[in-house]
Amino acid sequence: MEEQIDLVGKAFIDHYYHLLDNDRPALSSLYRPSSMLTFEGQKILGVEDITAKLTSLPFDQCQHVISTIDSQPSTFAGGIVVFVSGSLQLPGEEHHLRFSQMFHLVPVLEGNFFVQNDMFLLNYG
Amino acid sequence: MEEQIDLVGKAFIDHYYHLLDNDRPALSSLYRPSSMLTFEGQKILGVEDITAKLTSLPFDQCQHVISTIDSQPSTFAGGIVVFVSGSLQLPGEEHHLRFSQMFHLVPVLEGNFFVQNDMFLLNYG
Repeated sequence: MEEQIDLVGKAFIDHYYHLLDNDRPALSSLYRPSSMLTFEGQKILGVEDITAKLTSLPFDQCQHVISTIDSQPSTFAGGIVVFVSGSLQLPGEEHHLRFSQMFHLVPVLEGNFFVQNDMFLLNYG
Repeated sequence: MEEQIDLVGKAFIDHYYHLLDNDRPALSSLYRPSSMLTFEGQKILGVEDITAKLTSLPFDQCQHVISTIDSQPSTFAGGIVVFVSGSLQLPGEEHHLRFSQMFHLVPVLEGNFFVQNDMFLLNYG
């Protein structure tokens, strides 16, 4: 069961950052009207406003490189919390930005998940 | 309601790191048998093993300085996810270590919370 949680968490993270780096409008499929995003302290509620935020981020053509992925079952039936760290590499910039992010994934009937909670932080040294 | 969540998250974080820096055995009151801790990738289950881990951490006499606290309601009735960043200052060391940590707090009958999910990461630059 624990291994299954890790596999689901990793598959979600791979999918999420692939879309974030390559097809941001498609991220809307991962959120719902009840979803919440806190992005560097800014609170955003619901799939429409979250998608608008993510598609308007200034770092176009960036690449997220994942360093660690930790997953645990949440108490919500079948839910998963995923905690990620990594770096954000911007084109033409020598230095990268470290970030950490957490997701609370809630299952939907078809065996898929949506993002109920999403919190993103840049980690300044 | 959102403000209430922020207040509860901040009060929990203040209490948690005060105990971590000053009275680590008392942290056991915040966990339950179902609680999970992932500490730098190591998975630990249940209040006894989590308390044993936290009380045996090598950095005695350290001080956690909090930089950011973000809180959101989780879907679990009355639950809260809290995402924290800060630095860990060790006695006699000039440099500090950056960390980030997430907690999933679940309410108990008396209006208190216990930690169901806890994930801790050092953020290396």
